[in-house]
Amino acid sequence: MAENDRKMHYHDYLHIDQILSAQVLESEKAGRKPAHEEMLFIIIHQTYELWFKQIIHELSSVVRMFNVKEVDERNIGVATGRLRRVIEIQEVLVSQVRVLETMTSLDFLEFRSYLFPASGFQSFQFRQIEAMMGLEEEHRLRYGPKPYHTQLHSDQAGEIQDLEDADSLFECMENWLERTPFLHLGDFEFLKYYKQAVEDMIAQEKKFIQVSTMDQDEKDRHIAMLEANSGYYEMVLDESKHAEMQASGQVRLSYKASMAALLIHLYRDEPILHGPFNFLSCLKDMDEMFTTWRYRHAQMVLRMIGRKVGTGGSSGHDYLRNAASQHQVFKDLYNISTLLIPRSSLPPLPTEIKQQLGFYFTSTDV
Amino acid sequence: MAENDRKMHYHDYLHIDQILSAQVLESEKAGRKPAHEEMLFIIIHQTYELWFKQIIHELSSVVRMFNVKEVDERNIGVATGRLRRVIEIQEVLVSQVRVLETMTSLDFLEFRSYLFPASGFQSFQFRQIEAMMGLEEEHRLRYGPKPYHTQLHSDQAGEIQDLEDADSLFECMENWLERTPFLHLGDFEFLKYYKQAVEDMIAQEKKFIQVSTMDQDEKDRHIAMLEANSGYYEMVLDESKHAEMQASGQVRLSYKASMAALLIHLYRDEPILHGPFNFLSCLKDMDEMFTTWRYRHAQMVLRMIGRKVGTGGSSGHDYLRNAASQHQVFKDLYNISTLLIPRSSLPPLPTEIKQQLGFYFTSTDV
Amino acid sequence: MAENDRKMHYHDYLHIDQILSAQVLESEKAGRKPAHEEMLFIIIHQTYELWFKQIIHELSSVVRMFNVKEVDERNIGVATGRLRRVIEIQEVLVSQVRVLETMTSLDFLEFRSYLFPASGFQSFQFRQIEAMMGLEEEHRLRYGPKPYHTQLHSDQAGEIQDLEDADSLFECMENWLERTPFLHLGDFEFLKYYKQAVEDMIAQEKKFIQVSTMDQDEKDRHIAMLEANSGYYEMVLDESKHAEMQASGQVRLSYKASMAALLIHLYRDEPILHGPFNFLSCLKDMDEMFTTWRYRHAQMVLRMIGRKVGTGGSSGHDYLRNAASQHQVFKDLYNISTLLIPRSSLPPLPTEIKQQLGFYFTSTDV
Amino acid sequence: MAENDRKMHYHDYLHIDQILSAQVLESEKAGRKPAHEEMLFIIIHQTYELWFKQIIHELSSVVRMFNVKEVDERNIGVATGRLRRVIEIQEVLVSQVRVLETMTSLDFLEFRSYLFPASGFQSFQFRQIEAMMGLEEEHRLRYGPKPYHTQLHSDQAGEIQDLEDADSLFECMENWLERTPFLHLGDFEFLKYYKQAVEDMIAQEKKFIQVSTMDQDEKDRHIAMLEANSGYYEMVLDESKHAEMQASGQVRLSYKASMAALLIHLYRDEPILHGPFNFLSCLKDMDEMFTTWRYRHAQMVLRMIGRKVGTGGSSGHDYLRNAASQHQVFKDLYNISTLLIPRSSLPPLPTEIKQQLGFYFTSTDV
Repeated sequence: MAENDRKMHYHDYLHIDQILSAQVLESEKAGRKPAHEEMLFIIIHQTYELWFKQIIHELSSVVRMFNVKEVDERNIGVATGRLRRVIEIQEVLVSQVRVLETMTSLDFLEFRSYLFPASGFQSFQFRQIEAMMGLEEEHRLRYGPKPYHTQLHSDQAGEIQDLEDADSLFECMENWLERTPFLHLGDFEFLKYYKQAVEDMIAQEKKFIQVSTMDQDEKDRHIAMLEANSGYYEMVLDESKHAEMQASGQVRLSYKASMAALLIHLYRDEPILHGPFNFLSCLKDMDEMFTTWRYRHAQMVLRMIGRKVGTGGSSGHDYLRNAASQHQVFKDLYNISTLLIPRSSLPPLPTEIKQQLGFYFTSTDV
Repeated sequence: MAENDRKMHYHDYLHIDQILSAQVLESEKAGRKPAHEEMLFIIIHQTYELWFKQIIHELSSVVRMFNVKEVDERNIGVATGRLRRVIEIQEVLVSQVRVLETMTSLDFLEFRSYLFPASGFQSFQFRQIEAMMGLEEEHRLRYGPKPYHTQLHSDQAGEIQDLEDADSLFECMENWLERTPFLHLGDFEFLKYYKQAVEDMIAQEKKFIQVSTMDQDEKDRHIAMLEANSGYYEMVLDESKHAEMQASGQVRLSYKASMAALLIHLYRDEPILHGPFNFLSCLKDMDEMFTTWRYRHAQMVLRMIGRKVGTGGSSGHDYLRNAASQHQVFKDLYNISTLLIPRSSLPPLPTEIKQQLGFYFTSTDV
Repeated sequence: MAENDRKMHYHDYLHIDQILSAQVLESEKAGRKPAHEEMLFIIIHQTYELWFKQIIHELSSVVRMFNVKEVDERNIGVATGRLRRVIEIQEVLVSQVRVLETMTSLDFLEFRSYLFPASGFQSFQFRQIEAMMGLEEEHRLRYGPKPYHTQLHSDQAGEIQDLEDADSLFECMENWLERTPFLHLGDFEFLKYYKQAVEDMIAQEKKFIQVSTMDQDEKDRHIAMLEANSGYYEMVLDESKHAEMQASGQVRLSYKASMAALLIHLYRDEPILHGPFNFLSCLKDMDEMFTTWRYRHAQMVLRMIGRKVGTGGSSGHDYLRNAASQHQVFKDLYNISTLLIPRSSLPPLPTEIKQQLGFYFTSTDV
Repeated sequence: MAENDRKMHYHDYLHIDQILSAQVLESEKAGRKPAHEEMLFIIIHQTYELWFKQIIHELSSVVRMFNVKEVDERNIGVATGRLRRVIEIQEVLVSQVRVLETMTSLDFLEFRSYLFPASGFQSFQFRQIEAMMGLEEEHRLRYGPKPYHTQLHSDQAGEIQDLEDADSLFECMENWLERTPFLHLGDFEFLKYYKQAVEDMIAQEKKFIQVSTMDQDEKDRHIAMLEANSGYYEMVLDESKHAEMQASGQVRLSYKASMAALLIHLYRDEPILHGPFNFLSCLKDMDEMFTTWRYRHAQMVLRMIGRKVGTGGSSGHDYLRNAASQHQVFKDLYNISTLLIPRSSLPPLPTEIKQQLGFYFTSTDV
């Protein structure tokens, strides 16, 4: 119920006139027959930008919730819900590509020249999103001689720099993980137990290979594979090894945060860890969806203009496809999967700790 | 390549500032803490309106192509492509509902009162789309005491009336079907053969039921069903029966157009009929997608506000759900399916007609 | 790593030969040219049945977790995850309809007669799912003179009866809600506060209408609407009113369970209620997706065979469309939305209760 | 209507018992508590294999239609419809990945060891599809020391070899394109006109760059880009250049077929070329969807097992991601986009040829 006497109308509330007068066809301005498909080209990009604004709205609020000394427990659920919303929006972004693909390259040629040299690289909001996620200039795949921000209006480039300097979602998550109180619970030393479990598991796997019916050649290959993979475990078992990998850029997440993430993944069924696990899962989902979107975008460019070389010196498609995986921010969370061990090999939690990890409030107390 | 020396930028071309300054939160204007979810509510509706504009752009162009004495053959393919684009857009409209569903009813209550009495019924563009499709005031399910257009700004109501008076997509299609030259090809009387084929088929089905192992009760039920259905065939076989059904509102499409649509469906594999068949199929797909969208919308309203009674005197959900099927425009095309007979029962086309229906140009002529 | 020396192969593990030899075309057995599209018809139904088996696997496990005196707290998260999986499967079921729609009605006619009188109504597993959800014979929309189970093989009909007699997901949820300890927390009487808040809200809304610029006619309509809706609140505020509605079939969920669901919806941000809220949300999502699937199925039948009258005496399409909303099981959860009031009108929880609803374990304890 | 007196039942027709008894959990056979998620793992793979069978059914029929001296004109439409069906199936394959992603890596670890060393690489049907599309051993990205077919049962490896030796969809399309009669139409020499149009367009673009307001540095970069791209045009304009590119593996499609594909893309609006254009578009769509599916698969493997090194010596994820683009078969069709020129620069077709490309049958003839 409105708190004053005005009579709100859908049309005015949504500023429909303002929105619907923002489609100006360059092919029409040029005094020629308007290119039919230019309308689609403009409108789909405008919907993308509207959704980007919404994503920024959600990510900012999540960063605000986590960029504090002590994260309010109830905000983990709220933040997870908002990331889920971002993921649903990303599904829409990806599925919209099918709409753009109904425009063929011949249709595009009707107005493409009028747009020169405008480019999707110039989307300020998408750049904001990347910076808020935690992607920085140094992680980017360079396209052409100049850094990415030279594509932007100059005031926008400054804003991006500010965003990169501020705490990103990646850093907020890292800080929050480092502060989780679960790694040392009373006398329970999680890592000591985990280390033992990993060693037992590897020894057992080696034995299985040796007694199997495979020929020696195949056995050797499997043993080699097993040894290659045990290197991953060292990363958590050995802090200095992790430091090396961090220095060389193979890993970004701190040692302490990695351990906390590992523990959360392994004991995610404990009620108190369920929320944090869902939150980390949503970060991965969101990160993957951006990758998927970049990838679909690259495929679409391939259809539209083939492998034409762009100003960056290579084809736009090849750049976009390679950037798709390079620009993934939360890679280290994926690698947690490499470190997991079966629940049956998990060191059991001492009963008193299990109780601490449950909810205080139970029906018997009422 | 630009035809003058200006340097087009993505940001200016897409009028990003204009688009991104059109989100004004009423919950914020009221001087309170802005409701976090109001941004989503505004943005998703704005993307809907942008897509509606695109749909109108496509439908108008299709109406223009068909609203002529003789439809240019090459435009059938172009029009079909554009309807396919509309269908892909509709897929996006439907999938967007998932995004809105991430807003719970409690979130909605934070700002709902500020919007009163604005309503999605007031979307002028959606009303335009319906009118362009061929939905008229008289076909509408009435909600509340006043007709739909009283919801609109007064100048908009006039425009809708003009659109309803002009030729809609339904009427263009009907006229085009009536003009197809295929019903009488030389000495080949399509309907005569079809009538015979239908009678043979029904007689055979009756025989199968009678010799089957079913008990008498079940046989009777199947015979009754068979007879009920043969009424559908009469509609095409008997022009006066069709006129009656048209008068009572059971059928909207003219007799002649219905026959042409039937022939196109039956002989769709002939190259020259393949295009018309695809065009009719897209009309059905598009019509169905609008129904699906209305239905999903109804479900979403149910989640958001339950079965609260609206100003129309019944719950919004119930109205929307019933309107979903009532507002379907191309129902008669669906009913063509009822009239089809197996290819094996089809009267074969005389060779000379088959040749006429093929392409003139063949490799042997080169 | 395998625990014996066998060498598992993808082909054998998945019993591919068994799966891929189960497509027997009736059109081929009849000694005629196989109907190309019959393969699609068989395969898509087989994938549906495989997914039904998976859904049953998930639902059974959820029922097992909840069909106990005291639900293990950690199982709420697990159950919610499994319902989310069911929802993703349902998305696939719905999107598969697009595949079937690539088969036109003319294609279907090539083999349809061989299938007579087989029908999708005869899917035992789908019937099982419905019974496990909580749909019983008495809630069903009847099609034709005989109850649904007569369509099944006789041993299957018995199994369905057993499922209907056992506790369904609906009943498990109802029992679990009735046992939640949150309705009376210390001295805090939730309903007393809620009742006051609702009355205040309605009084305020009435005032807004009266001081608004609407004409008297419109004011009257809005007041009438307001009064119609306040009846919903009575349902919770007045136990005997609820009993009446239950008796008349308007409501199925018990009074106590309804109140618990209302409280969970209103205070869902409390960490301890976040899990239960997510669980209830998933039940609604799943229920809605079944409705959507039934609806899409009805639309597809309309395309395939039009409004042909079936053995039930009405058209299959009309039956399926009406059943879609009638067969929804968790309607009462949707109606909770009608009962919600804005967070700002919510009675605040006393501090000591808020603490009880949080997690015991906080970082300061470490 | 059945042609004999049997009473077909849904359950028997679909061989439901056979289908539903093919899920044998290894975790259960091992005598332990069955791993809940193994059921999902089996069922999703079985649905994939069912869909692969359907795809093979469609592709075989298309190859049969095109693997003839003279393709029946009416089969182009039929084949296009079947490829559209394959594309819809692929949409399902891709969306199913979301279902599998509801299984976390920890769930997977519960039964993963029982499957060793079975692998998705061992899917015979997927290998068949790839071979039917036109992917041969030599185009494959090698994983590990042994060629792919050593993963298969030995009789299956032979069948794949036979498929690779037979005409694939790629080869059928190539032959069909080479036979199209459109390249020389009367006195109209398509390539002569096209060559001139390309040269004019490039000269004009160069002029625009030179008169623009860009600084010299930027102008140079754009000129360099323009020159790099004009190399693509040479490929068609100069047969020997094309031969070189073919020899070096940059191009697979023959010179003559490439020219025909170019012409079809440029004059696709002519009714007689509309069908061929749609057919080529579907080939591209289908090819892209396989790439998308491989890519989504790679992402899913990353989530499930991280970057664990596999028996191929590198991580499964890295292999799958790289294979996704390497295994694309119809790349040359995408590159046609690079060769297109705006409709306005197109050499106009002489009127007599336009008439030849239209349909013979027009309403004035009736």
